[in-house]
Amino acid sequence: MLDNIQIVMVNTTHSGNIGAAARAMKNMGLSRLVLVDPKADINEEAIQRSSRAEEILHNARITQTLEQAIAGCGLVVGTSARSRHIPWPLMTPRQCAARVSQVAAHDNQVALVFGRESSGLTNEELHLCHAHVHIPTEENFSSLNVSQAVQVLSYEMRLASLADDGAEQDASWGVAWDYPLASHEELNGMLQHMEQTMVDIGFLDPNTPKQLMSRVRRLYQRAGMDKMEINILRGMLAAVQRQTKALQASQDADHNGDSV
Amino acid sequence: MLDNIQIVMVNTTHSGNIGAAARAMKNMGLSRLVLVDPKADINEEAIQRSSRAEEILHNARITQTLEQAIAGCGLVVGTSARSRHIPWPLMTPRQCAARVSQVAAHDNQVALVFGRESSGLTNEELHLCHAHVHIPTEENFSSLNVSQAVQVLSYEMRLASLADDGAEQDASWGVAWDYPLASHEELNGMLQHMEQTMVDIGFLDPNTPKQLMSRVRRLYQRAGMDKMEINILRGMLAAVQRQTKALQASQDADHNGDSV
Repeated sequence: MLDNIQIVMVNTTHSGNIGAAARAMKNMGLSRLVLVDPKADINEEAIQRSSRAEEILHNARITQTLEQAIAGCGLVVGTSARSRHIPWPLMTPRQCAARVSQVAAHDNQVALVFGRESSGLTNEELHLCHAHVHIPTEENFSSLNVSQAVQVLSYEMRLASLADDGAEQDASWGVAWDYPLASHEELNGMLQHMEQTMVDIGFLDPNTPKQLMSRVRRLYQRAGMDKMEINILRGMLAAVQRQTKALQASQDADHNGDSV
Repeated sequence: MLDNIQIVMVNTTHSGNIGAAARAMKNMGLSRLVLVDPKADINEEAIQRSSRAEEILHNARITQTLEQAIAGCGLVVGTSARSRHIPWPLMTPRQCAARVSQVAAHDNQVALVFGRESSGLTNEELHLCHAHVHIPTEENFSSLNVSQAVQVLSYEMRLASLADDGAEQDASWGVAWDYPLASHEELNGMLQHMEQTMVDIGFLDPNTPKQLMSRVRRLYQRAGMDKMEINILRGMLAAVQRQTKALQASQDADHNGDSV
């Protein structure tokens, strides 16, 4: 299970935090680190802070965008303070570990996303996450060091993996499922397809505030869609778009007819 | 929380089981019993088996269909042996109680559905449930008496309600949600709207096996949709249907044109 979990650090600004996170990961049996557009080098300080976890630093995958980092993941959880604007599914670290162990036990890939030291994750980044996890903290002293946050979640992942010998019998919905979870790109592709279709049929004004699509994204991410469900919705959307084209063609034809 | 839970018994054939279920409910602090097309009377035997829970029997709501029984419910859980055909979300009694306490703590109505003594719930009835709950039993002796099943789940509901003082702060998705859960009728209305739209646009053949719609139903029931999400999807479906009508009208016009 732990092999299917990647720790994703976004725009980390301190080399020492990257090293300390790698060490925490190795202590808990995690090994896959992804750095999204890191603002700090993997330098001597990072290696020193990683203690004996150098190989995690050397094997770290570096991407330009969060999208690239979570590609292929069936579950994406972002660390956040209590979420703002539109409420998003929010888990405790323990609930998160339970959900991750269910999903990862079936070879679905999982990403745990950690934000900037200064400002955490942006709302746009948080909306790419299927759920948020909040580490309980003192009300008026709530900002954990990012490597400590990695430590806490990695610890919960380890506990869940130890507790979870039975997980192989249990898929992500408590019963052996018939299709694997859709990857981030598959889910995202469906959502883009749906957004374009909503614009085509005049339901969504491309200039409106994004809130409607955020709600749609939240709904489908929350459901934990499988690949077949994605295919069904995309098939329906394609049928709607064929109809839109047919209507436009036929209206153009009428129009030409009139102008004769 | 317990006040928002109703126990739904479908086609119960033994008066004694209805009485025993009422007693088990009262013992655990539940009071709302719904009998769907009962095949047994609330007779002397029922009242005797209910011990001092007569008022639950007298106040029992009787409906002709399961749909009527679960009207207004934001969460519907059906008791079942491990589910067949298309896998459906399956919970242990404890997981079920945790989910119910989250949902019921926010005044969403919950139905726990129990099947016939002889044959349990039909697949069609099970598909109306957002999730299934399975009481673990001996492999080769797996059929519980229905009143015993009511006892086990009512007991878990009680434990959850006692444990759940903090539930009021926590909505069904672990964060205060902005809209209440859609009721069964609202969800069902959206699903019928979607099915009709799929037929209108030629994506769904009304004569095909129902499996596609079962998967669609499973997806949206699993997501635990709120009222706003229902409105968004229905708005999109209505826009698609307006387009279908426009296309038909313009094709009819063309056709008349040709025939002149």
